[in-house]
Amino acid sequence: MPEAATAAAEPASIALVTAPTGDGEFEFDRDTALTRRAPGVYDIDLSAGWTIISAVNGGYLLAVLGRALADALPHRDPFTISAHYLTASQPGPAVVRTDVVRTGRTLSTGQASLFQYDENGAEVERIRVLASYGDLDTLPDDVRTTAKPPAIPPMDQCFGPEDGPAPVDGSSAIADRLMLKLDPSTLGWALGQPSGKGEMRAWFGLKDGRDPDPLSLLLAVDALPPTAFEIGLRGWVPTVELTVHVRCRPAPGPLRVSITTRNLAGGFLEEDAEVWDSADRLVAQSRQLARVRLG
Amino acid sequence: MPEAATAAAEPASIALVTAPTGDGEFEFDRDTALTRRAPGVYDIDLSAGWTIISAVNGGYLLAVLGRALADALPHRDPFTISAHYLTASQPGPAVVRTDVVRTGRTLSTGQASLFQYDENGAEVERIRVLASYGDLDTLPDDVRTTAKPPAIPPMDQCFGPEDGPAPVDGSSAIADRLMLKLDPSTLGWALGQPSGKGEMRAWFGLKDGRDPDPLSLLLAVDALPPTAFEIGLRGWVPTVELTVHVRCRPAPGPLRVSITTRNLAGGFLEEDAEVWDSADRLVAQSRQLARVRLG
Repeated sequence: MPEAATAAAEPASIALVTAPTGDGEFEFDRDTALTRRAPGVYDIDLSAGWTIISAVNGGYLLAVLGRALADALPHRDPFTISAHYLTASQPGPAVVRTDVVRTGRTLSTGQASLFQYDENGAEVERIRVLASYGDLDTLPDDVRTTAKPPAIPPMDQCFGPEDGPAPVDGSSAIADRLMLKLDPSTLGWALGQPSGKGEMRAWFGLKDGRDPDPLSLLLAVDALPPTAFEIGLRGWVPTVELTVHVRCRPAPGPLRVSITTRNLAGGFLEEDAEVWDSADRLVAQSRQLARVRLG
Repeated sequence: MPEAATAAAEPASIALVTAPTGDGEFEFDRDTALTRRAPGVYDIDLSAGWTIISAVNGGYLLAVLGRALADALPHRDPFTISAHYLTASQPGPAVVRTDVVRTGRTLSTGQASLFQYDENGAEVERIRVLASYGDLDTLPDDVRTTAKPPAIPPMDQCFGPEDGPAPVDGSSAIADRLMLKLDPSTLGWALGQPSGKGEMRAWFGLKDGRDPDPLSLLLAVDALPPTAFEIGLRGWVPTVELTVHVRCRPAPGPLRVSITTRNLAGGFLEEDAEVWDSADRLVAQSRQLARVRLG
C-alpha cells in the first residue's frame, strides 16, 4: 500500500456518525451494529438471521461494511459502493477494517474489508469494498429522469413464502425477516414454468416494520430470488461484484424492487436492480456480476 | 491496512502477462505502456493524447490501471473493474501501485491506485480501483440473453468531428485518436435541439486501426459525449465511479456503443454503456455515477 493511503487509515479521531434511527428496536439495526475496537476497526458478530440456505446474504454483508464506512468517513450516506466478494462469509465473529482514502467537501471515499478467522485464528478476507459517501439531504431536489416505476401489481396480488407453495425457500432464515411479495408474472419458475425472461420484481420491506434508509437499500438490491431462475436455470448464483448507487433517501413505506438480466453468457450474468420508494422516487440502482453454477 | 493484505501486496515474483498484441505499433498500446519499478509498482508518463479539453479521459486512465493489474495478477482479463475517481489527473508522470487481494483458480482480485506528484513531490492519489480478473478464453461459449444490439444506422450515415460542424469538440486531443461516428438521432444537442432522452450511440474504434481488446473496451465505455447533452444540459460531467464488466473478448472490427441514462436527479446521473462487437456479441457493460456541473 502507498504511504499516503496507509497514513490516512488511522486518523487521530473519527467523527461518530449518528446511528440509524431506531437502533436496537429493529433486527436489521441490531444485526449490523458494530463495536469500534480502534479508530477505523470494528468488531461484529455476523447474524445467522440473514442466511440463504447456509450462505450469509451479500446485501446484509454490504450493509455491515456500509455502516462501518458511515462511521469512519465524515459523510454518512453511501452514494456509490462497490464490493468484490472474495470468500464465503459464515455467521459468527468478523472484523471490519476501514481506510479513509480521501475526504472532500461534498464527497469522501473510503475502503473497507471484512475478515473472518480461520482455524488458527488468522484473518481471512471475505469482502473488499470501495465507496464514495456524501450527504443525501444536501442534494438539490431536481429530477430529470425518463425512468418509470416498475409495473408491479398491488401487494395483495403478489406472493411471498407465506402464501402457500413456498416460492422462496422456507429454510432460509432471511425469509423470516423480509417482507417480500413477488410479482406473479416473475414467479413462473416457482411453478416449473419459467418465463425465459431475466426479470424479477417484488415489493420489499423489513418484516418488523423498520422503514427503509440508505443502509437497508444495500440489502434490498440483493434480496430477491436470482433472475436466473426465470431464465430456467436452477442452482447457485454467487456474487462476484456488486455496486450500488444510492440516489435519494427513501420515504417510509414499502419499496418496489425490479431486477433485470440482459446478458447471461459464458457462465456469468449481470443483475441490474432498481429500487423505488413509496413516493415514486428511484432511490437506488445497482448492478452485480454473478457466476452461474448450475444445480 | 490489514496485515494480510499488505503482505500480499509484494509477492516475491509476479508472472509477466503477455503484452497486448501490436505493442509499440499502435498509439493506445504505447500510451498505456508501464515500466515496472518494483513488484507491483509501475511508472508511466500519462499521455496528453487522450485529453478532453484539459482533462485526461477516465477510460484511458482505467485502461492504464487495468493493464497494471493484468501484469500484477495471475489472470489477464478484467472481468469486473470498479474505479473511484478522487482527483483530476494531468498529463505527465504517474505511478501505479497494485495490491494482490486474492488469487483463485478462475478469478483473482486486485487493487490498484494511480498517483501523481504535487509541487513538493508528494504522491497525490488520483484513482483507486478494485477488480476481479479471469481469462475470457476459458469461458464456455453459451449465450442466453435477451439483449439485442443497439439500432445504430450504418457507419456512413453517422457523424464524427470530421463531418462538418464539429459535434465533438475539435480541441480535444482524444478526438484525433478515436474513430467515433455518432448516431444522428442522438446528435440533436450538437444542433441545439437535444432530444430530451438520455441516450448516446456511436460506432467506436481507434483511428490507427488497432483492433479492440479487453483493455480498449475500458476506454470505449467512457469515450462518447455525455448523455446529459441530449437531456439539454451543457457543462462538465465528472465521473465519481465507473464499473466495467468485460463479458467476452471482442472480435476485430468496429464496436457499437450505446449509453443510456434513466435517472438524472439531485445533481447526479448514471450512465449505462453496452458495447457490442462486429460479431454481434455484447462484449462489455458498464455503469458510472457522474456529477452534473452545469456550464
